Amino acid sequence: MDYVYGPGKNHLFVPGPVNIPEPVIRAMNRNNEDYRSPAVPALTKTLLEDVKKIFKTTSGTPFLIPTTGTGAWESALTNTLSPGDRTVSFLIGQFSLLWIDQQQRLKFNVDVVESDWGQGANLDILAEKLAADTAHTIKAICIVHNETATGVTNNLATVRKILDHYQHPALFLVDGVSSICALDFRMDEWGVDVALTGSQKALSLPTGMGIVCASPKALEASKTAKSVRVFFDWKDYLKFYKMGTYWPYTPSIQLLYGLRAALDLIFEEGLDNVIARHSRLAKATRLAVEAWGLKNCTQKEEWFSDTVTAVVVPPYIDSSEIVRRAWKRYNLSLGLGLNKVAGKVFRIGHLGNINELQLLGCLAGVEMILKDVGYPVKLGSGVAAACAYLQNTIPLIPSRI
Amino acid sequence: MDYVYGPGKNHLFVPGPVNIPEPVIRAMNRNNEDYRSPAVPALTKTLLEDVKKIFKTTSGTPFLIPTTGTGAWESALTNTLSPGDRTVSFLIGQFSLLWIDQQQRLKFNVDVVESDWGQGANLDILAEKLAADTAHTIKAICIVHNETATGVTNNLATVRKILDHYQHPALFLVDGVSSICALDFRMDEWGVDVALTGSQKALSLPTGMGIVCASPKALEASKTAKSVRVFFDWKDYLKFYKMGTYWPYTPSIQLLYGLRAALDLIFEEGLDNVIARHSRLAKATRLAVEAWGLKNCTQKEEWFSDTVTAVVVPPYIDSSEIVRRAWKRYNLSLGLGLNKVAGKVFRIGHLGNINELQLLGCLAGVEMILKDVGYPVKLGSGVAAACAYLQNTIPLIPSRI
Amino acid sequence: MDYVYGPGKNHLFVPGPVNIPEPVIRAMNRNNEDYRSPAVPALTKTLLEDVKKIFKTTSGTPFLIPTTGTGAWESALTNTLSPGDRTVSFLIGQFSLLWIDQQQRLKFNVDVVESDWGQGANLDILAEKLAADTAHTIKAICIVHNETATGVTNNLATVRKILDHYQHPALFLVDGVSSICALDFRMDEWGVDVALTGSQKALSLPTGMGIVCASPKALEASKTAKSVRVFFDWKDYLKFYKMGTYWPYTPSIQLLYGLRAALDLIFEEGLDNVIARHSRLAKATRLAVEAWGLKNCTQKEEWFSDTVTAVVVPPYIDSSEIVRRAWKRYNLSLGLGLNKVAGKVFRIGHLGNINELQLLGCLAGVEMILKDVGYPVKLGSGVAAACAYLQNTIPLIPSRI
Amino acid sequence: MDYVYGPGKNHLFVPGPVNIPEPVIRAMNRNNEDYRSPAVPALTKTLLEDVKKIFKTTSGTPFLIPTTGTGAWESALTNTLSPGDRTVSFLIGQFSLLWIDQQQRLKFNVDVVESDWGQGANLDILAEKLAADTAHTIKAICIVHNETATGVTNNLATVRKILDHYQHPALFLVDGVSSICALDFRMDEWGVDVALTGSQKALSLPTGMGIVCASPKALEASKTAKSVRVFFDWKDYLKFYKMGTYWPYTPSIQLLYGLRAALDLIFEEGLDNVIARHSRLAKATRLAVEAWGLKNCTQKEEWFSDTVTAVVVPPYIDSSEIVRRAWKRYNLSLGLGLNKVAGKVFRIGHLGNINELQLLGCLAGVEMILKDVGYPVKLGSGVAAACAYLQNTIPLIPSRI
Repeated sequence: MDYVYGPGKNHLFVPGPVNIPEPVIRAMNRNNEDYRSPAVPALTKTLLEDVKKIFKTTSGTPFLIPTTGTGAWESALTNTLSPGDRTVSFLIGQFSLLWIDQQQRLKFNVDVVESDWGQGANLDILAEKLAADTAHTIKAICIVHNETATGVTNNLATVRKILDHYQHPALFLVDGVSSICALDFRMDEWGVDVALTGSQKALSLPTGMGIVCASPKALEASKTAKSVRVFFDWKDYLKFYKMGTYWPYTPSIQLLYGLRAALDLIFEEGLDNVIARHSRLAKATRLAVEAWGLKNCTQKEEWFSDTVTAVVVPPYIDSSEIVRRAWKRYNLSLGLGLNKVAGKVFRIGHLGNINELQLLGCLAGVEMILKDVGYPVKLGSGVAAACAYLQNTIPLIPSRI
Repeated sequence: MDYVYGPGKNHLFVPGPVNIPEPVIRAMNRNNEDYRSPAVPALTKTLLEDVKKIFKTTSGTPFLIPTTGTGAWESALTNTLSPGDRTVSFLIGQFSLLWIDQQQRLKFNVDVVESDWGQGANLDILAEKLAADTAHTIKAICIVHNETATGVTNNLATVRKILDHYQHPALFLVDGVSSICALDFRMDEWGVDVALTGSQKALSLPTGMGIVCASPKALEASKTAKSVRVFFDWKDYLKFYKMGTYWPYTPSIQLLYGLRAALDLIFEEGLDNVIARHSRLAKATRLAVEAWGLKNCTQKEEWFSDTVTAVVVPPYIDSSEIVRRAWKRYNLSLGLGLNKVAGKVFRIGHLGNINELQLLGCLAGVEMILKDVGYPVKLGSGVAAACAYLQNTIPLIPSRI
Repeated sequence: MDYVYGPGKNHLFVPGPVNIPEPVIRAMNRNNEDYRSPAVPALTKTLLEDVKKIFKTTSGTPFLIPTTGTGAWESALTNTLSPGDRTVSFLIGQFSLLWIDQQQRLKFNVDVVESDWGQGANLDILAEKLAADTAHTIKAICIVHNETATGVTNNLATVRKILDHYQHPALFLVDGVSSICALDFRMDEWGVDVALTGSQKALSLPTGMGIVCASPKALEASKTAKSVRVFFDWKDYLKFYKMGTYWPYTPSIQLLYGLRAALDLIFEEGLDNVIARHSRLAKATRLAVEAWGLKNCTQKEEWFSDTVTAVVVPPYIDSSEIVRRAWKRYNLSLGLGLNKVAGKVFRIGHLGNINELQLLGCLAGVEMILKDVGYPVKLGSGVAAACAYLQNTIPLIPSRI
Repeated sequence: MDYVYGPGKNHLFVPGPVNIPEPVIRAMNRNNEDYRSPAVPALTKTLLEDVKKIFKTTSGTPFLIPTTGTGAWESALTNTLSPGDRTVSFLIGQFSLLWIDQQQRLKFNVDVVESDWGQGANLDILAEKLAADTAHTIKAICIVHNETATGVTNNLATVRKILDHYQHPALFLVDGVSSICALDFRMDEWGVDVALTGSQKALSLPTGMGIVCASPKALEASKTAKSVRVFFDWKDYLKFYKMGTYWPYTPSIQLLYGLRAALDLIFEEGLDNVIARHSRLAKATRLAVEAWGLKNCTQKEEWFSDTVTAVVVPPYIDSSEIVRRAWKRYNLSLGLGLNKVAGKVFRIGHLGNINELQLLGCLAGVEMILKDVGYPVKLGSGVAAACAYLQNTIPLIPSRI
């Protein structure tokens, strides 16, 4: 019962969990260790220092929590807000929907700003709400940087501008699950108060570590936030940080060493190069989609996501059949359409530690699948479009020049 | 920064995280996978079925939660209880203390029954409280099966007898973190309502999976429990169980395959043989302690733990120095004394996938360390006592006969 | 100094060593073991039995030798021939050249039949030589099944027919290094006397195991062959086979478990399906080459290799530059042209545990590189040609239907 | 068929293959690579430079051959000698016997100097032979540094002194299989001409790499040596060294990275510290044997081996039963007695990357087994003797001070 065998590599193009680079798999291939020995705090210290770089923050305080993205959300919310607090939250797809659901279940008063799936957050409405909120009843703005279900990236710099314009003190909470380490993200510059991601996304690790980073303002808020929390309470972490032992409860030794290796790889490539690579792969994907004559679920270029592309299929095709066939015939894993766009879109995740030829193999596969399911694609068209762009833009690999 | 090198194997004898067997390390040595492919639910189905066996339950419902033991506690409590609910909880060491702290922070009305550290839960007081509680204000009995800080095992069968005697409907919640898969544990027979453990304990996996098992009565309670919860909410799991996709959020693919391998190893050895092995190793450890002329922190034989032994050092010795020296000179990891017993005890964890010669290496190391720190031990005495017992009791390895 | 980092997977398309499937990497991720324990002979027994299946022999005797293909050659020759013996050997590329060099250095009287590089063995000349050799001075026919340097596959069935036609008793020695487990190979049916391969080729293991299979006639010959040999002497193996301990000297425990896993994967897919997959990938590659307007180094269709394609570049391009650029810019490993065809061809290895989308990624990369180096390729053309064929021929993955 | 399960770690105390340290297992956990890319020569260059350090040579030329110790022997002999050449070779146990057998089968004129098994090489006879050989008919002295079958270490410095005394030009060929990286070995100082070891011995790697180091004089001899050789021919290596591509045939990528990691560990600990650790573990073992009232197979202290101890059992005990029982009951792997000492001795291998507590676990196991088979051992006695010595001599682990 070890696997469902297919020859060759599985082509993993879901928007998470993503491909783990071999050096990270290697780093995690180890026995457990006593996390109270001097070795683990020494390692942890470097991780906490270096993980801040992927958030582009120097003033933030990171928490490495043994949980998933959902738990990271809960950590962000419960440490900064109290039941009944008003949040403004943008519903633009399945993951923002789930976060809003969490906010509601945590008893916040959620002011939902909904857009069509495929659109970004409506920031005009945000501006209106902030303008109207002279009493500062809005305690937090909750926004996903990148909606993984639709491939929509929101403009966080604009959110900050609007907040500043109205001199509104609301906390700025960002789900960066499918953005951080892949998209341009600037915690300090954009005045983000809590940002978070999960290990299995652009960091290219296994699932199991929620990474949350809190601004000084968020830490301050956590002192008075009344949401009930224990496992997710930052207070316990801060106490152990102070003691220099770092862990209020047992961390995964393997994920710590894995994170060390993942960060090393990112810094070796250069974070900005990593981001540029994501941009390049995404652009190539979109060119392929266009060449196939298909539509991007994302309705405007300003929202195009560089980590996931949701492709709209013609009404006579069930996108789930594309995903099924990809797995059954091509050993290719694509993302399903979720909820409102179920059956209507399939998703290509192009985030994490992948390169151009991996993507081109995926795109070639998608072309064949489209033909399989009766869509009149010209085989090679998408790959050709992608290659035409990539052949001009792929840099030499610095370590091999 | 990969490791703090010492020649040979690290001798890992903390009471968790414990040694991972090589087949489990191997099973986890893999890339991520799409958890929405048909392969992962098929695997999960076998895990949920088989994990019940380690709880000895057929009626329970297991939850494999991406969290630690602390999170598993929170899952047990928040799904079954409401703020203000009265719990009876036994404080007998650091881990029961932390669980009580969690219960208080979750706003339960905790009726703490305290014992000296080194003693088991005072079940006479439980009987008294239940007798007095004709109004059934007590909603749950919370008890650690095995207190990892002091090496004390509580008698759960007696707890059930008392509950039955008074026909008290309180839920029976058990922390089995350092017991399940190592000590005799019988969820159905003892009428336990929620039992939980962590992957890094006797299951011998990395940290990262909290395993919680709920009785039908506990599931029923979860429908009305008012504690705020989202990440830990069983409801989401149950919804996905029904759909057959199993995961409300991303599981660790590696831990799933690791759990499969860990369970396979346990069933191959036989759960009862695993438990007998723990009993054998623990008895050998206690005989060594006795031979050294040292005292077990556990005050009565009925509470002796088969997974961890806390050894009391003479007042003129700092037990932390023993732990430090073990790591620095012998590549041996022992457990510190915690809180009230800090400096006074050190702990030998003898749980998980280890065998007799591994333990004897550890005991030989402890003897040398005792001598290092000025305790007049007769070298070889503990090993001799342990060997005398083991040589008569170790069975042949069934697969090798 | 762990690696020369490039993002994403290395695309390994040299004709060996080839990609190792994850289950095999996993199986090899282990400590050493005592090879004299009962476990290793039990494992070895299954390997020796099962490895015969990849040779399609029931009467052959396999030897698993801790060496490379070069050592396997030496094993085949020295165990069956004596210095001065006349061999007929076909020179059609770099690897047959090296084997001939070895035969000469081992002091055989080598009757070399040379063809242009890109042609197969000239079997007409073989017929002539056998016809003339009524005195049976020819002791062995030495032929590579697949010349890895030029992508030429020889017709072994015809060799056997010719031998039978002249009722010539010469031994029939076959280098199956880049064929066995990938091309149709029938040891018993074709009356091959010694066949050999290396672990790092179509078996998809690391380098380090030469696999040699001897017919009863070859074993008989080994009793009188006078070539000096010790390490490669079959006699020592046969002695240990008889004793049931199997190993005259220490085997690699890791490669034994790896071979077990590799065979299991091959049998799970079905050896004939594996061969069909190689045929499919090779055909797709050739269609791409044709679409690019380039020539296959192999001069006639009857010799086309299903494991490696050597592509001839126009005279104004240095094929080595293609290989360099592949590595430096695309993280793609292609094979260099060797010796006579150095600079003139580059090679795409399409053998071992790979699938269609992996190949298509490679082909897309080659297109971009061709453009990089100034060849006027139409981007997408090769991929389109390959896809058009593959989309009609790829079967569903049986385990996923 | 993955393993013959026993709980806990296998205690591997055969004198090879030995325990692989986790960082080395990790380094080898990787896919294949193109060995013709620039990365592999760059790695190889560091290996060839650094591997000389374990031979303590600056003038030697190392060869990393994909073979075992037996193949390394053959490489040493065939590259330096011609058929008919006279060698003086010492028969003191099973491995020297096998080497002599190889020498004879390679057609050398072997002048065998035999000693009782348990004694070292008789160097008085060497002196006599050299004294008598004024015609310099002796072309090589072949000697095992450490006879693995009996635990006997020969004095190589004395061999050199005798050669120098008689100003004899014979080559000095040393089997260092169970010595190099564990015992004090000084290739340059002792004027050794060829020294060799295998990866699976004190280097603590998997089997599969024979490491041979040749002095300038040996290289010179290889130019005229007439032994037939191809796979083992140094000439091919030297040609590729010159070209900077290093490999005449495919190396194991995994073993190259493994060797890099193994050397890094040795240099981190310090080669002299590694040798001291072996000395310490060996002394502890001998003290235990003495405490048990048993005899060391090695007859004089000057020959005591620091890598393996052969323990003589009383006549009424079959030592094979001890080895069988170790594996069946204690998951302990001990070495059998071989050939002349079969049934009479069992062997404890204490070489490679192990530490004191691992050894003490093994010794405790041996005590129990001795009792199992009816030998009246005092349990704990051997461990006590070993501990008494070790407790005074184990240094702090430098990286942890």
